[in-house]
Amino acid sequence: MSRFDIEVRVKPRPGLLDPQGKAIHHALESLGYPGVGEVRVGKVIDLTLEADSEAEARERADEMCRKLLSNPVTEDYQLRVRASAGKEAEG
Amino acid sequence: MSRFDIEVRVKPRPGLLDPQGKAIHHALESLGYPGVGEVRVGKVIDLTLEADSEAEARERADEMCRKLLSNPVTEDYQLRVRASAGKEAEG
Repeated sequence: MSRFDIEVRVKPRPGLLDPQGKAIHHALESLGYPGVGEVRVGKVIDLTLEADSEAEARERADEMCRKLLSNPVTEDYQLRVRASAGKEAEG
Repeated sequence: MSRFDIEVRVKPRPGLLDPQGKAIHHALESLGYPGVGEVRVGKVIDLTLEADSEAEARERADEMCRKLLSNPVTEDYQLRVRASAGKEAEG
């Protein structure tokens, strides 16, 4: 068993309303920042996962995204998987 | 003027409580996923910015992070800046 660092970025699908992004855009304009285009806000989820291989870690993380971490109707997700530095789990 | 894509990741500082992360961890366990370690949840903010150079874009995005996008007491942020592909702004 090895430990893997998983980073999941969940973002609203292009074209869907993003009220939080609109609010941030408005606030940036009010603060006097010019030249800001569209703002979109999503989530970033970091977790560690123990698995036998990177492929297995990625597959399980992908399933977690589909089942819990993202809403497939309104959101897209991107996964990044890499071995945890110097933290080999026993097994 | 060129257009730059900015990605800001805002994450709770290490050691601070992250109730949203705890809730996700609990939910993943309930769904039967073993081997999940700590879960931390942050925000990812995508925006476009018009600026004369990448250095200027980065500097302004950094200021936005400090003033609006992150809470310096409880959160850390990471910036990624790159030129927008094929979308040179006039000016």
